Amino acid sequence: MKQALSLGRRGLGRVWPNPSVGCVIVQGRRVVGRARTADGGRPHAETQALAMAGAAGRGATAYVTLEPCSHHGKTPPCAEALIAAGVGRVVVAAGDPDPRVAGAGLDRLRAAGIEVTEGVLRDAAERDLAGYLLNRRAGRPFVTLKLASSFDGRIATATGESRWITGPLARRTVHAMRARHDAVLVGAGTMRADDPALTVRGLGPMPQPVRVVASRRLDLPDGRLAATMDQALVWLCHGGDATRDRRTIWEERGARLFECGVEHRQIDPADMLAQLGAAGLTSVFCEGGGALAASLLSAGLVDEVLGFTAGVMLGAEGTPGLGAMGLEALAEAPRFDLVESRAIGPDLMHRWRVQRHSQD
Amino acid sequence: MKQALSLGRRGLGRVWPNPSVGCVIVQGRRVVGRARTADGGRPHAETQALAMAGAAGRGATAYVTLEPCSHHGKTPPCAEALIAAGVGRVVVAAGDPDPRVAGAGLDRLRAAGIEVTEGVLRDAAERDLAGYLLNRRAGRPFVTLKLASSFDGRIATATGESRWITGPLARRTVHAMRARHDAVLVGAGTMRADDPALTVRGLGPMPQPVRVVASRRLDLPDGRLAATMDQALVWLCHGGDATRDRRTIWEERGARLFECGVEHRQIDPADMLAQLGAAGLTSVFCEGGGALAASLLSAGLVDEVLGFTAGVMLGAEGTPGLGAMGLEALAEAPRFDLVESRAIGPDLMHRWRVQRHSQD
Repeated sequence: MKQALSLGRRGLGRVWPNPSVGCVIVQGRRVVGRARTADGGRPHAETQALAMAGAAGRGATAYVTLEPCSHHGKTPPCAEALIAAGVGRVVVAAGDPDPRVAGAGLDRLRAAGIEVTEGVLRDAAERDLAGYLLNRRAGRPFVTLKLASSFDGRIATATGESRWITGPLARRTVHAMRARHDAVLVGAGTMRADDPALTVRGLGPMPQPVRVVASRRLDLPDGRLAATMDQALVWLCHGGDATRDRRTIWEERGARLFECGVEHRQIDPADMLAQLGAAGLTSVFCEGGGALAASLLSAGLVDEVLGFTAGVMLGAEGTPGLGAMGLEALAEAPRFDLVESRAIGPDLMHRWRVQRHSQD
Repeated sequence: MKQALSLGRRGLGRVWPNPSVGCVIVQGRRVVGRARTADGGRPHAETQALAMAGAAGRGATAYVTLEPCSHHGKTPPCAEALIAAGVGRVVVAAGDPDPRVAGAGLDRLRAAGIEVTEGVLRDAAERDLAGYLLNRRAGRPFVTLKLASSFDGRIATATGESRWITGPLARRTVHAMRARHDAVLVGAGTMRADDPALTVRGLGPMPQPVRVVASRRLDLPDGRLAATMDQALVWLCHGGDATRDRRTIWEERGARLFECGVEHRQIDPADMLAQLGAAGLTSVFCEGGGALAASLLSAGLVDEVLGFTAGVMLGAEGTPGLGAMGLEALAEAPRFDLVESRAIGPDLMHRWRVQRHSQD
């Protein structure tokens, strides 16, 4: 099952709207088939692994990280494929909460006389599949918030200098993190301040995450994003007051537009994430800026925080990495548990998980 | 030598103005004497270890973390004691830059026919003895700056709530850190905001570090500090414009006063540290507040930074842990190298060393 999990993890960021599943088929002590959900989400892991196993799949044990699907979607159900291949036993890590599956896949296998074992390494599988599971359960993608700052939480000096606070290795790590998410998300302020391309670079050819920009009025610069429309999808989340002209310009460039509710003169983050979830995204990597980060945190919509802290002191005049939160009391402040910390070049990386998951 | 270093480290914060030296005496394969500089700085490690060894010291090897002293101070020179005991060999980690010693201790031993080996684990010894060495070389104590804050660098909410951002284990660690320094240092703003006692608590009876407060006008509250004058020394650093009345009140309470130069309406941190160094302090643990921290950092007087980061988000309206630095460019910002990071209860502790040491 560990091999299957490891395979599944390799597909993260490449298979949305589907879950990144891993499957290993073992005949005796020999691995006769292994696969993960293919880039783009099809074919599924099980059908590929079974094809690899061929006749050796008969009587074999299939290790699958997520309950095999039982419904006819764009592909035939994997449960049927396992039955047809004649496997003797199926071991599953996590259950699929999709109402079209939800135990039906396992029932189908059992009805065909296949021995089924559930819950093997379930916690690890649920961590890996957190984005897919959250989308199925809460209708929104898993949100990772990245905050890279000076020791004292600043992202630019008073004079606006921000390149570079963290080092090249931290920036490379950020590109690798982008690649493992379905989408990268930033606010309009970051687009205007930094004009980022938001693509994954320096890691070889690979499927690019969707670039999502939250901009209430669609007042975005004609910068790198507009110049690289062919390199990765661009989805723009805007409010009702974005002008028809601006909508048309971006639609003609090929962007997909999402009109979102507005509250406190900002895009309603819950509505935005619900729409992104419905569009198929299972994970979003938010890279700021401070206002968008504060809006997501205040709404309890951040599942994981990834900090990069540089050993540099900028002082209180510097630009804060996190905007105003409007807290009335310390007890209201969102809290996170430390998962890991380590040096990334000269910088400190630290990862935290939210204390109360909204899917609980 | 590792044993000797370990012994020496146990005396940190207890032996100023002297260095915390460790000494181990080995006869054949047997340890016959071991000691560190005693609390208060006397007797020295070597004389205690030799006394423990007695006749077994003859022909033995003495491992000492710092070059033995050769001058008659408040105790007779340790070099003489080693000669008198008839040791056969002396192994030394770090040299003593004190002009009264500076190689003379080793020359004396060699002249007496003792084999001398220098520089064994010198780097480790110089790290442990950094405060003493810096005082000898630059005339000021080693400064460790502690900054405990929310993830986004805040130490209180907009409404002033600050208890507690970091957890009980982090606070206990701070008390242990206080105990390993000769003095604790805070600014007047912290005294007014938090009214701390600045004593080491919860770790059993032990020598207390000096409590140093930087307050230009000596406008300090009549709080815990005044109520605990008997528990630990109180040294107050003030400017020329502190009123005679306030000086008298604190002197009568038993505080020692240091009149320091003033620049930009703040106490000149270099003058303050020079006076604290001349008074014998080899290490200072600065716990803020933001203005004092910024003043020390801007002047390049911080040797080590100790961060405690809590997994809580307070937002940009919160009080910043570090005050205004007045930087003109990012290149001017003080930079630090990561030494270690680890979880302390729910919080992240991270330790950094300044990139260019002022004693270099």
